[in-house]
Amino acid sequence: MTNPPDTPDIAIVGGGIVGLVLAAGLTRRGVQVKLFEQARNFREIGAGIGFTRNTVNCMEKISPGIVRALRSGGSVNVSLDQVDPNAYLRYINGYGLQREDDPMYQKPLLRLDAGVKGWETVRRDQFLDDLVKEIPEGVIHLQKRLENIIDEDGSEKVVLQFTDGTRVEADAVIATDGIKSTARRLLLGEDNPASYPQYSHKVAYRALIPMDKVTAAIGEYKTQKQHMHVGPNAHLIHYPVNTNTIGATVVVSDPNDWPLDKPTTARASRKDVSDALANWSLPVRNLVDLFPEELDQWALFDLAEYPVPQYNKGRVCLVGDAAHASSPHHGAGASFGVEDVLCLCTIIPEQTVQYTRERNVSKGDSMRAAFETYDKIRRTRTQWLVNSSRRVCDLFQQPEWADPAKRVKTESCFEEVKDRSFKIWHFDSAKMQEDTLRDYQERIRALEKKKVVNGVNGKTISNAVKEPEWLFAH
Amino acid sequence: MTNPPDTPDIAIVGGGIVGLVLAAGLTRRGVQVKLFEQARNFREIGAGIGFTRNTVNCMEKISPGIVRALRSGGSVNVSLDQVDPNAYLRYINGYGLQREDDPMYQKPLLRLDAGVKGWETVRRDQFLDDLVKEIPEGVIHLQKRLENIIDEDGSEKVVLQFTDGTRVEADAVIATDGIKSTARRLLLGEDNPASYPQYSHKVAYRALIPMDKVTAAIGEYKTQKQHMHVGPNAHLIHYPVNTNTIGATVVVSDPNDWPLDKPTTARASRKDVSDALANWSLPVRNLVDLFPEELDQWALFDLAEYPVPQYNKGRVCLVGDAAHASSPHHGAGASFGVEDVLCLCTIIPEQTVQYTRERNVSKGDSMRAAFETYDKIRRTRTQWLVNSSRRVCDLFQQPEWADPAKRVKTESCFEEVKDRSFKIWHFDSAKMQEDTLRDYQERIRALEKKKVVNGVNGKTISNAVKEPEWLFAH
Repeated sequence: MTNPPDTPDIAIVGGGIVGLVLAAGLTRRGVQVKLFEQARNFREIGAGIGFTRNTVNCMEKISPGIVRALRSGGSVNVSLDQVDPNAYLRYINGYGLQREDDPMYQKPLLRLDAGVKGWETVRRDQFLDDLVKEIPEGVIHLQKRLENIIDEDGSEKVVLQFTDGTRVEADAVIATDGIKSTARRLLLGEDNPASYPQYSHKVAYRALIPMDKVTAAIGEYKTQKQHMHVGPNAHLIHYPVNTNTIGATVVVSDPNDWPLDKPTTARASRKDVSDALANWSLPVRNLVDLFPEELDQWALFDLAEYPVPQYNKGRVCLVGDAAHASSPHHGAGASFGVEDVLCLCTIIPEQTVQYTRERNVSKGDSMRAAFETYDKIRRTRTQWLVNSSRRVCDLFQQPEWADPAKRVKTESCFEEVKDRSFKIWHFDSAKMQEDTLRDYQERIRALEKKKVVNGVNGKTISNAVKEPEWLFAH
Repeated sequence: MTNPPDTPDIAIVGGGIVGLVLAAGLTRRGVQVKLFEQARNFREIGAGIGFTRNTVNCMEKISPGIVRALRSGGSVNVSLDQVDPNAYLRYINGYGLQREDDPMYQKPLLRLDAGVKGWETVRRDQFLDDLVKEIPEGVIHLQKRLENIIDEDGSEKVVLQFTDGTRVEADAVIATDGIKSTARRLLLGEDNPASYPQYSHKVAYRALIPMDKVTAAIGEYKTQKQHMHVGPNAHLIHYPVNTNTIGATVVVSDPNDWPLDKPTTARASRKDVSDALANWSLPVRNLVDLFPEELDQWALFDLAEYPVPQYNKGRVCLVGDAAHASSPHHGAGASFGVEDVLCLCTIIPEQTVQYTRERNVSKGDSMRAAFETYDKIRRTRTQWLVNSSRRVCDLFQQPEWADPAKRVKTESCFEEVKDRSFKIWHFDSAKMQEDTLRDYQERIRALEKKKVVNGVNGKTISNAVKEPEWLFAH
């Protein structure tokens, strides 16, 4: 049960999808992992989640068990149409009567090609359940609520303190504790606004609806394929989450504030949804009629207003929503967490062990350097996503959709939606891995040089944010 | 002086940079061109204009004479530094004191690599003068103000009427008459808001300043290289326009309206500029001190609010600013007009003549199809530019630059600025030419099929806007 002497043992804080994906990736690579989850059981909401081919490829590289879990949970391609192997994201006009002779008609705006089997969707709760089964026994520790992290420069290990009074030591800590991350608050401080989620002024209503009912309401074609209906101050997306269920989400603009101390879900009624979409197309109104009479209203928070200045500090780093919680409008929040994990698994433990062994770099320094690399490689892209998600929501919900004179303007936004979607979907994860390796090796070389100057017992690497004289972009 | 019988003769309306580039491209290809300009002389403002390598390559394909004109006019690479062959666009923080110990310090934000000799800049007026010299004699007709275009389905020629009572016939009309295009108004109608420019709520102040004075004010490094200073509600860009002159432009947000019947330039004073930049960095204030005491304020109009629904109608089409006038914040308005011209020169006259000769398609129908292709190929990208230019200006001028707590948020916008700039700079013009050819050939084939059905004297092609069932994006 003990590691070989140079392999780091790592504590993961938070057992959501990204935490479990990380645990699967690290345990597969021989790292001794302890995952701490504050809840009594794993819980996910009964809503859909989708992954592009690109993200599934990243999962495959992290651990094939993750893809197994995704598929055993009953994932489906969002296009169930066997004739058409591509999964498209279809944007259509959701607002108003668009053809006098056909109240069901909605103007197509853009069909984005995600490639062959380009979107795979699943129920979140099912995926999480099956992911847990992929984690070796003894890794997961439930009912462990983080209270403090002690990472002293001179000490051999980082110490985690939990609210039940227990303490655990590890060579490094990776926090995947989500948008309300305790680790983020510990790293940034109580007074930093980046420690807390920020309200994006959108609320969401989610439903899972039997497929036959949806077919009767909006027709077979739309039911079988992922559609995004856009219109003034709201949008609606729906897609099959398995062979007999449609997942649907309505997002509505909300000019009001939502205090942080108020729960982020509130009880609401179907009438709240149908009021927001009162003047929309008949298929949209038909679909909303199938939402439950009583349902939750989800306030959508993110980290857009006060992004995290740096994702690492010493031997601790923030991953997934803990680092870059985004509103869900690109459907890519979890995917970006999966990319984060692939970045880390590219150097941990193979590279960190190699350098610890061959180059006399301490285990602590090798982990610090790994997390600096992670921050360098991942921060720009992930903070872009947070901004981009807000931006595309603004484009989907342009108030001008209600103004026929602004038709060309509103429609011209889709070139931007396409570019943003393709930046997400066509991510070159192999290049990210190369960049990760190169950056890590450069840091280790710099560290060796410093040791030569300072002697083997020189100082640990400074963790100060270095402001580059120029940020290159090629 | 007369064309071979199948070569179209084409009337160009408007003698700005894009109109002259088009005239150079078509005359080089043996088309008989008449260019009509309303002014008594060619006039351009004494400000700088820059072209990326990509645009210069497009010019080369249209006609090497255009590049000759650009360079004989004294163009310079924006990086005069001989050691560094790359031309970068450097974004730096323009606001406030950023280092207590160094009032000249400004934080670098992003350095965008435009490639080797990536930006070539010139004085607009010099470039225009030299471009005129590349146009064969007899092509240019000055003091011709367009009054009407008569394009009847059955008639052999299109008729242009001028305000001086004269009439000219041509096989087709290409309007490059700029943001205040008369042709656009004639095509869209007096009551269409897209017929008129729309105020973008930004004003610009431009200056040409001797290089030695700028060096004394902001230092040699910044003087020699293109820099964009960003800050709350304004930005400043400067670059060398020749070996002894710096072109500088300040853009300031303006919440007020600017009525269309008011001239788009107004007299202003240096104090207006320095008031807008009162709390900015010392180098910015030093540079503004070198602006003339009295100068013009330019209201920046574009076509963002009411984009043109279609760039072609029958045998007439709109090119450059007449079709897609943009605010200048990407520095790419003229470049996109050059791309438009390359698109047209890809099929006119070689393809149109070939089909007229070999396939019994009338000259009129071949021109109508050419302009349909042009609209299909160019509209999405060019309307994206108009939106994108407004967007990057909003990012440059985020009010949050004044709030230190929002530093990470404001800085995180540059990933988007990079993506947008690279979409402009790394345009695949060879692919555009392939797409243009393919689309044109498909239209001609469809036209032939129709003729088989309707007989050789079947109807002319319908010019109705066809709404595609799906707009594909791969």
